[in-house]
Amino acid sequence: MAKYCFGIDVGGTTIKCGLFQTDGVMLDKWEIRTRVEESGRYILPDVAETILAKIAEKNLSKSDIAGVGIGVPGPVNEAGEVPEAVNIHWGYVNVVKELGDLTGMTVKAANDANVAALGELWQGGGTGYQDMIMVTLGTGVGGGIILGGKIVAGAHGAGGEIGHAHVDDTMVEACNCGNHGCLEQFASATGIANLAKKILEASDAPSVIRGHRNISAKTVFDAVKEGDALAIQVAEQFGEYLGKALAVFSVVVDPEVIVIGGGVSNAGPILLDYVTGPFCKNTFPPCRDTKFALAKLGNDAGIYGAAKMVL
Amino acid sequence: MAKYCFGIDVGGTTIKCGLFQTDGVMLDKWEIRTRVEESGRYILPDVAETILAKIAEKNLSKSDIAGVGIGVPGPVNEAGEVPEAVNIHWGYVNVVKELGDLTGMTVKAANDANVAALGELWQGGGTGYQDMIMVTLGTGVGGGIILGGKIVAGAHGAGGEIGHAHVDDTMVEACNCGNHGCLEQFASATGIANLAKKILEASDAPSVIRGHRNISAKTVFDAVKEGDALAIQVAEQFGEYLGKALAVFSVVVDPEVIVIGGGVSNAGPILLDYVTGPFCKNTFPPCRDTKFALAKLGNDAGIYGAAKMVL
Repeated sequence: MAKYCFGIDVGGTTIKCGLFQTDGVMLDKWEIRTRVEESGRYILPDVAETILAKIAEKNLSKSDIAGVGIGVPGPVNEAGEVPEAVNIHWGYVNVVKELGDLTGMTVKAANDANVAALGELWQGGGTGYQDMIMVTLGTGVGGGIILGGKIVAGAHGAGGEIGHAHVDDTMVEACNCGNHGCLEQFASATGIANLAKKILEASDAPSVIRGHRNISAKTVFDAVKEGDALAIQVAEQFGEYLGKALAVFSVVVDPEVIVIGGGVSNAGPILLDYVTGPFCKNTFPPCRDTKFALAKLGNDAGIYGAAKMVL
Repeated sequence: MAKYCFGIDVGGTTIKCGLFQTDGVMLDKWEIRTRVEESGRYILPDVAETILAKIAEKNLSKSDIAGVGIGVPGPVNEAGEVPEAVNIHWGYVNVVKELGDLTGMTVKAANDANVAALGELWQGGGTGYQDMIMVTLGTGVGGGIILGGKIVAGAHGAGGEIGHAHVDDTMVEACNCGNHGCLEQFASATGIANLAKKILEASDAPSVIRGHRNISAKTVFDAVKEGDALAIQVAEQFGEYLGKALAVFSVVVDPEVIVIGGGVSNAGPILLDYVTGPFCKNTFPPCRDTKFALAKLGNDAGIYGAAKMVL
């Protein structure tokens, strides 16, 4: 009976690693550097090496290990294949086969945002639920859909790519994906800063955020907590975009809970106040009591979720 | 080894019934009246009676029957309970338990639109796929989400209620659900007729649909086929609303195929021409090759899907 498993979260600069008991207790976590050189060919060998070293260090046997879960910053299909992952310079990689061959262990792979969502469902903001929409508000907007406790990977590995939901017809600038008017352009940290700049430019009213050299989502929500009228206007616009979009997503999969994470969510519960109003106004009436929660695992969500995949 | 199953589709005026072989061949179909009087208390006993009569008529044994699947016009949770179904005058009904007790057979229940989607996946426009969004353009806009071959019922039985996705901030009239700006208000048969009326009123240009006493979706698409410029404008607006909304849904669940059914889809392949353009323009780039298909089973989709639930 396996007692342990590994959760691996591959990012553009570091690879986060966790050793877990199968009951969910994290025993150890560490990081290694992501070597993106030569089309990222060293990434999976490096992961295998650090896992095998950890097994030796802890005097474990491979038969004690349920497997290795791994989150990758790109689309991953049901079979664990990645067609392309630009952040780590990958072309096609069959993660499950390659890492399985390198470690001799069972491997499960999925998109990093989806894996983080699974982590939050297991031991974070979504604990106790089976059906969840997770939205991660960072530099971009990521997401993950969990139904019946399982990740919705999607036919093109694009399940939960809710940052690229089209929400605005008037946006002139292009999103990173090439489209115009994606949710990410309004509800990410960058998007919130842009909303703030536009609102400041359009008004002469005094505001504590006026004159900040680098207006960030944190600047905005700190000012909201001080009652700054213009900052509140920014938060309302942000909430309108995100709440309305979540209302649309909710009539597709009708989750029990919506969990909001990422750097922007460090603003705390006040963030939810701006999102739930527009959500309730625009969702199908039976969905109005959908629960909202903040993510709890921060940067560890990925290793938790990766570990959960093999249990 | 069971050789047969029943598929039942409860509507507001008639109950459609089908006897199927477990390999999917429909052997018989018939209808009975929906008795909505006395809070619809006779509906499930009538269903049980017609099933038991059919078993006797065909000289079958109950042990030959895999079970009874039933679609209900209202929300149905995973356990087969209906909190309320206004069209058939129901308050709370535990369909699985009541119909199971009445027939002595295994019963599965789900929302009628979701069940129709499952039917189309099994033997209709979605054959060969496992992940599908179905949208039904009738008097209203219904829908169903199928992932991994299974219905997404949702936490409030509202999975696939995509007709109530908020798509427009300017709509003054209320939707049947009480909200304003639902997809149903623009992409249903009624919605298309309303779009046509507004476009005709705003223009003096000649059009074959001008002067029609009752402009319908059929009037519009018949005129589109004749090259009528105003009708084409209506079709473009319809396609813009529906294609954009489907683009948003596609970044949530990323289906293999989107199937369009309901009365409006009788317009044929020309309908898809107006939807796929706005879809491709607005969806996440990896999803642009999502397949589109028209539904094939018409009013029989419900009994097919209901039967499939018990197989």
